[in-house]
Amino acid sequence: MTTARVSTEPAGVLPRSGLHASLSAPLLDTMTFLNEVTLRYPQAISFAPGRPYEGDFDVARVPGLIETYLDHLRARGLSEDRVRTALYQYGETAGQIRDIVAGMLAVDEDMTVDPASVVVTVGCQEAVLLILRALFTGPDDVLLVDSPAYVGITGAASLLDIPVVPVPGTPDGPSLAGLERTVREIEASGRRARCLYVVPDCSNPTGVSMRREDRTALLDTAARLGLLLLEDNPYGVFSRVRRPTLKSLDTERRVVYLGSFAKTAFPGARVGFVVADQLVAGADGRPPGLLADEVAKVKSMVTVNTSSLSQAAVAGLLLQNGGGLRSANEASARHYQATMRCLRETLAAELPPGSSETAGVRWNDPDGGFFLTLDVPFEADEAALDVSAEKYGVIWTPMRHFHLDDAGDRQIRLSCSYLTTDHAVEGATRLARFVKDRSTTLGPV
Amino acid sequence: MTTARVSTEPAGVLPRSGLHASLSAPLLDTMTFLNEVTLRYPQAISFAPGRPYEGDFDVARVPGLIETYLDHLRARGLSEDRVRTALYQYGETAGQIRDIVAGMLAVDEDMTVDPASVVVTVGCQEAVLLILRALFTGPDDVLLVDSPAYVGITGAASLLDIPVVPVPGTPDGPSLAGLERTVREIEASGRRARCLYVVPDCSNPTGVSMRREDRTALLDTAARLGLLLLEDNPYGVFSRVRRPTLKSLDTERRVVYLGSFAKTAFPGARVGFVVADQLVAGADGRPPGLLADEVAKVKSMVTVNTSSLSQAAVAGLLLQNGGGLRSANEASARHYQATMRCLRETLAAELPPGSSETAGVRWNDPDGGFFLTLDVPFEADEAALDVSAEKYGVIWTPMRHFHLDDAGDRQIRLSCSYLTTDHAVEGATRLARFVKDRSTTLGPV
Repeated sequence: MTTARVSTEPAGVLPRSGLHASLSAPLLDTMTFLNEVTLRYPQAISFAPGRPYEGDFDVARVPGLIETYLDHLRARGLSEDRVRTALYQYGETAGQIRDIVAGMLAVDEDMTVDPASVVVTVGCQEAVLLILRALFTGPDDVLLVDSPAYVGITGAASLLDIPVVPVPGTPDGPSLAGLERTVREIEASGRRARCLYVVPDCSNPTGVSMRREDRTALLDTAARLGLLLLEDNPYGVFSRVRRPTLKSLDTERRVVYLGSFAKTAFPGARVGFVVADQLVAGADGRPPGLLADEVAKVKSMVTVNTSSLSQAAVAGLLLQNGGGLRSANEASARHYQATMRCLRETLAAELPPGSSETAGVRWNDPDGGFFLTLDVPFEADEAALDVSAEKYGVIWTPMRHFHLDDAGDRQIRLSCSYLTTDHAVEGATRLARFVKDRSTTLGPV
Repeated sequence: MTTARVSTEPAGVLPRSGLHASLSAPLLDTMTFLNEVTLRYPQAISFAPGRPYEGDFDVARVPGLIETYLDHLRARGLSEDRVRTALYQYGETAGQIRDIVAGMLAVDEDMTVDPASVVVTVGCQEAVLLILRALFTGPDDVLLVDSPAYVGITGAASLLDIPVVPVPGTPDGPSLAGLERTVREIEASGRRARCLYVVPDCSNPTGVSMRREDRTALLDTAARLGLLLLEDNPYGVFSRVRRPTLKSLDTERRVVYLGSFAKTAFPGARVGFVVADQLVAGADGRPPGLLADEVAKVKSMVTVNTSSLSQAAVAGLLLQNGGGLRSANEASARHYQATMRCLRETLAAELPPGSSETAGVRWNDPDGGFFLTLDVPFEADEAALDVSAEKYGVIWTPMRHFHLDDAGDRQIRLSCSYLTTDHAVEGATRLARFVKDRSTTLGPV
């Protein structure tokens, strides 16, 4: 037997990884930053993390969720040996709860989806990575993103060295004129716009939702431009206005639908999914296959399959709630609506319009969910954030982290999902004080 | 509310993905093939899947594993709120059980590892993908693999478009002369050999283990060539001969260590890890950081973090077994030794040396675990496999799937891990009959 040896003399210092060549440093650090800024100022109230509220979660319920799923398998006639295999063994790459996920989409979103087009993933983040790897065929393929954009999509693209081009956003979603112009410019440069990533409901980072008529128009424009749409819908369940998903309006398999259980079940489970019912050319003259099968092939090289424990827990939650999660999340939706209302009402009281102190300060009115955009008349950068956290005890996210260009310098993303209503009020009060002081110190715009 | 619409009219058929351009089709299909061939012939005895034996697993134990971990957190002084957060919420990207994993390496492998150099991953497959993405900096970086090689490493490399060059294997591991020659050839072509992937204990696919002296020699050769080593060790616990890991012999941080709980705990959990204590140059003159931190950054764009349920279950199992899994797996190790012995003894009885029927038939003597190499005097291809499965009721894996070159055409990988001893005997009897008939039909070599 060898005795233990500690590695103490480095063979040398390795060069920085390829990641740094393909990513701008701020982007690379953003996700870590978002997760860790709260730790740096433990006493501050944080509007930074896009985390779901956990006050209603009971850890003692978890074994029962798994048991519900196993009982479901037993009720379907599986022997105890096969039930054991389902929990213990390597599972189907595309997931063992695809039918249950498809059932949820029928119940919650009026979407009829073939379970064969579903791939269950390790959170929506893996779904994003897999679909990009399956869809993009060469260095001339460009990903479009509704800008500002969730860092998970730009991060995954960077990991795969996929070029990303922003499409300017409006208060109602992506600009269709901007989209068309961008696609034409990309084509003129000899490249191809492969797809547009968009969060139509209560978008991260802006809180913007697309109107129904804009959804139809986006589908029409995409059809005209020969563009696929990647629809990411983690927040739709929490909107006070219910609108059809792009995928439910899609009659020509133009939309790849990305889903997450991080907010409707719990993030620790790491379960998401992708619906990819597009047809892909077969090899050697064979008939076309499903894009979902290509996605599963990529998954076999990334995570092999999604944790059976996690799939069981999520499926158990669905089975305990009639197959959907919309009704099970009514209390959560009310909570998010209440914290958002507290945040907005406190801002309105503390930053009344018409005052010289509040010139250039405004915010939007999200339909629900997690995020709100606040415009301020000063640079909302890390230096400002440090002052805010240290002197005012309130944390937020600079919006420019979500921009690929130089925009968003004077915007803040506020997330109130993780807070109690009391904290939302107190946090907004502190934030208003910071904004007034900072605006006054730096003078009017 | 919109009514449901089914996507029925395809926008068109998409081109095949970039995956197909960078991968040879056989390789791409191998993992799916390995998982699904058993399903095609349900009555056949299968030596194909590298799955652990599940007969001793009790699904009723799983809630207790999670509870053990939560009690451990409570015993460390965490409040119920923080215990809830640990299970419910997004967790630390690098993992919440890094200290427990490091503890296991001390108990099971006499390895002293800083928990900060550990990243917990979604199975070892994610660890492989992440470390490749973090290590490889450009198109001139080449990955070396001990050939034949596990498809998980070549698959992950293909996903990232990393060129892979095989190093010829010997019955005792990679050829050091072949390694040096290969590295020199790569350098002469203006490229750089970045690292060598190797499974020193009971390798997949061959069952070969490296001798102790060859491990030291490999480390010396790697140091001379300026090469990192990726050591993958999923099977070491099951070897009847205990040898030091490369990492435990490594005094200069030359070895990145990949670990898996798929065989020692259970595959469905999807928990693996990487130990990456190498130093990486800091940005903008800042001090060097750990390679593990780079790996975690990549992970934040792949799966964000590993399922908290899965981490809890694996940690609970470790905590219930004194922090290690070697002793907890003694029964499993005995089982694998017994099935391997049944397989070899049956082959020896049915295919006695010296007969004209068995000319060119031989097999190796693995130290344990899952895999054995069988040489046959005919093409061991899919056509032969179909005959074997349909007519003889026995399934195996063509070894050429694990070769990047044309080698291995007359070799078979046999896995006996998933079988009972009775099935191993019956399967080996059927296999011997097939081998004799096929050798006779096709005539002597």
